Amino acid sequence: MKHKKNNTSVITMDELVRTPLRVIRRRIEGFSFAKVFLHPETGKAQHLAAGTLVQLLPTEIVAKIIYSDAVSKDTVMVSTELKDMPDYVQLEPSSGHMIVNQLFHKKLDGEKLSASDIRQLLRAIDTGAVEVAQLGALATLFEIKGLDPDETVEMATSIVEMSRPLEFAKKPVVDKHSIGGVAGNRITPIIVPIIAAAGLTIPKVSTRAITSPAGSIDAVEVVMPVDLSLEEMVRVVNKTGGCIVNGESVGIGRVMDKFIGVLKPLKLDPIPLMVASILSKKKLAGSQYVLIDLPTGEGSKLPRRRIARELAHEFSRVGYRMGLHVENVISPGIRPIGRMIGPALEMIEVFKVLENKFASRALIKKSLSLSGILLEMTGKAPRGAGYGIAEHILKKGKALEKFKEIIEAQGGDPSITSESIPKASYRHLVTADISDTVYTVRSSSLVKIARAAGAPWDRTAGVIIYVDHGDDINPGDPLFEIWAESESKIDAALYIAEQDPPVVLEKMVLEYIPMTVETEY
Amino acid sequence: MKHKKNNTSVITMDELVRTPLRVIRRRIEGFSFAKVFLHPETGKAQHLAAGTLVQLLPTEIVAKIIYSDAVSKDTVMVSTELKDMPDYVQLEPSSGHMIVNQLFHKKLDGEKLSASDIRQLLRAIDTGAVEVAQLGALATLFEIKGLDPDETVEMATSIVEMSRPLEFAKKPVVDKHSIGGVAGNRITPIIVPIIAAAGLTIPKVSTRAITSPAGSIDAVEVVMPVDLSLEEMVRVVNKTGGCIVNGESVGIGRVMDKFIGVLKPLKLDPIPLMVASILSKKKLAGSQYVLIDLPTGEGSKLPRRRIARELAHEFSRVGYRMGLHVENVISPGIRPIGRMIGPALEMIEVFKVLENKFASRALIKKSLSLSGILLEMTGKAPRGAGYGIAEHILKKGKALEKFKEIIEAQGGDPSITSESIPKASYRHLVTADISDTVYTVRSSSLVKIARAAGAPWDRTAGVIIYVDHGDDINPGDPLFEIWAESESKIDAALYIAEQDPPVVLEKMVLEYIPMTVETEY
Repeated sequence: MKHKKNNTSVITMDELVRTPLRVIRRRIEGFSFAKVFLHPETGKAQHLAAGTLVQLLPTEIVAKIIYSDAVSKDTVMVSTELKDMPDYVQLEPSSGHMIVNQLFHKKLDGEKLSASDIRQLLRAIDTGAVEVAQLGALATLFEIKGLDPDETVEMATSIVEMSRPLEFAKKPVVDKHSIGGVAGNRITPIIVPIIAAAGLTIPKVSTRAITSPAGSIDAVEVVMPVDLSLEEMVRVVNKTGGCIVNGESVGIGRVMDKFIGVLKPLKLDPIPLMVASILSKKKLAGSQYVLIDLPTGEGSKLPRRRIARELAHEFSRVGYRMGLHVENVISPGIRPIGRMIGPALEMIEVFKVLENKFASRALIKKSLSLSGILLEMTGKAPRGAGYGIAEHILKKGKALEKFKEIIEAQGGDPSITSESIPKASYRHLVTADISDTVYTVRSSSLVKIARAAGAPWDRTAGVIIYVDHGDDINPGDPLFEIWAESESKIDAALYIAEQDPPVVLEKMVLEYIPMTVETEY
Repeated sequence: MKHKKNNTSVITMDELVRTPLRVIRRRIEGFSFAKVFLHPETGKAQHLAAGTLVQLLPTEIVAKIIYSDAVSKDTVMVSTELKDMPDYVQLEPSSGHMIVNQLFHKKLDGEKLSASDIRQLLRAIDTGAVEVAQLGALATLFEIKGLDPDETVEMATSIVEMSRPLEFAKKPVVDKHSIGGVAGNRITPIIVPIIAAAGLTIPKVSTRAITSPAGSIDAVEVVMPVDLSLEEMVRVVNKTGGCIVNGESVGIGRVMDKFIGVLKPLKLDPIPLMVASILSKKKLAGSQYVLIDLPTGEGSKLPRRRIARELAHEFSRVGYRMGLHVENVISPGIRPIGRMIGPALEMIEVFKVLENKFASRALIKKSLSLSGILLEMTGKAPRGAGYGIAEHILKKGKALEKFKEIIEAQGGDPSITSESIPKASYRHLVTADISDTVYTVRSSSLVKIARAAGAPWDRTAGVIIYVDHGDDINPGDPLFEIWAESESKIDAALYIAEQDPPVVLEKMVLEYIPMTVETEY
């Protein structure tokens, strides 16, 4: 065999220079990640196969190439996610996803990711230089293998470094965050006005539900606009001392939002990602003091007290290394906090609390406890006096007044009341058919029923629970009521309620062991 | 609070009946999974949000909705993956991905998947009722948590049940399968003609490379068409006794191909999926006897002999429960088998073996050993006589003659020889610069070099290794040679070769421990 030696000692790059293509903007929506459309002939002329991830120079954005003969030659049609595109872009194959693969395998093989690894990973996600399957794979890997404290700190600080933290003139700036999972835990729209009325700054950036029947944003959106820009948010906070806005619209920590966009349908929420995501967003929103609420108990996200305690220490440790003062409360997470579950239903109950009308005692007590700790953490109240000060603010109607100020500043109608919030047209009441005593009410079941009824997507859908543990019930007494926007969703929710009943009655015999052949030995 | 009781005891479904939409077929390629395009107004009129997974009734196919104002109203434009669509389809939201999520979480929580779970999972993947992120998540889950033997058997038998196994009149029907990872292991195009020439039937369905520089199909495609239909494959096998065709085109076990489409870019290859995929495809191709080749050793896919042995038992056990006679060989996997690595290069070496010209002794011996075992397994040769019979068939030129028959039957040019196979225009020879002895040649490094040079996508790209362990070398002696289709790929391959050298020289000092402060204690 003869071999032609045909090599130069100089390193040369491919001579191929791709001509820039004119950008055609069309409305194309529904992709998980951005796509660009090329005529197959243009794709071939540019040596870019369908399915290739390309960087759209001069920007840093990466998108996947789709061939379509519906596109004019020598142009590139871009999907709606791609905002701020110049008139011409030059497409160059991106290698970001290969780097992501290397990091995925590094972690899969049990190695620790370095600070630079984590920055590269987040950078790739941020620019879109990943395959959706890679995000699903990473989410599962982080769920199973976790991140160590250094990796979590690196992730949180890298997210912070990718944008610029807000600064508010009026200090101290505080925030609270509840780890979801407990039904009717709608304390945010009660705590924010109490804290702002006390003279602290509380720039609350919340999210939509991932696995619950309503996130803060899903609920609050029923009474005011939440999709504010960052500038609008700053204006509202400077004016009123508080806000409740959608993290997605203000764009704080958008890297994590891209990740969450994949986690959500997978119903995954790996703890280290959660810690990094929560604390980085608090830091970016300008907070100095953060109170984390960890509802615990069977059926909640944190079934064991020990795990909740470990997570609390993790929040404090990671927070400390990020320059945040973080405190935690472990709260009961088995029974529902509020009695009304679902976006509109929860806001009805919030308004009842603010209006000092009859409402769930647990909801009031929890809101005041957490508000009190926030006042104490920052020195606004002496230790032990926070609860009383918060209660005074609520009872005097100052929290309701402050909430209406915030509603108005965010562009909502401040004349709204618990009576005027929209209600579902289909309702089904489930009543008791025997006399007995309620042993417990299961939050986890109510969550499933409310979701089956259509929450959070159907705003007025959800469930109201009429009984609590220890209540004596008789035939005909109301147990719970399902609200929905169609008959079939009522039926779906009832089906779930039968499979997984929310009201557990007291049992006098816990287990019965009959005589069997085995017991004779 | 007053509640209107507004419920019927009859279970009713949503009244919404969606009007069928006219199907517009356009060339749209590059998606991982099928998409359908609707005008936003049509989408809204049909109550179908962008991003929703919908079943295209009356078919069972599922695709994701994309909104595009480039589509005419009241029509649905379908992407190229969607073949055999009727003229009108009715879109209905699919819940398959929710079932997949439930199964994902069941397995994540440590529960065993039942037979029905696995059938549902495969069914969802087959119809397209999954999110790409879910497949990435499942792949990672199976990689980390594995499948138990029952789950693996269920997966394999379910794949078989989803189509119909081929039947060949001429028995016995045999096959062999090598678990990839070892460079230059191009034994398939040598074994197939030997076995067919011996009078057995060997319907070989192969795949493209996942992580190697050439799969059987990438290599064989250099000398003949491999993208045959199932009917064409059956015709070739009935005529010649053998074939080497692309599993993707014959559509055998296409469920696993959808999975592999995601595994490939993630560079994941979970063992139970591999076992289920390989054995189900063998069964579907009509095989009764299967020989599995497990190359073992540092740097190969199976670094430890013990793991290879366990995998061998797994193949036999799962195979037995599927009605297959499976035997295994553990073969050396550290050093390369053939000397030439890359699609065209490997076919050059295959032809040299068939033409009885000078070629890698290891390649010849391995091909004859495995052919011999196949002859013995089926009773065509007495135990111990298989190797000799195979060698006789090769030396008499009957294997070359049979291969040319197969090439012709598959639509290739039977006049092809080792000389006429295309060769790369850019080549770079690396020579020794010292006198020393070769300790070993690392297959894993050659794999990376060949891939950096462009293999398997660039057909003529790859690497030739000129030395073997124990060889004495002197300055100027050829060590290895890189072939590529551009200068820059030569450079990329050289860079990899420097980072991870393929030729390891003998060391007389394995480790040096200098005196340090610590050693004084």
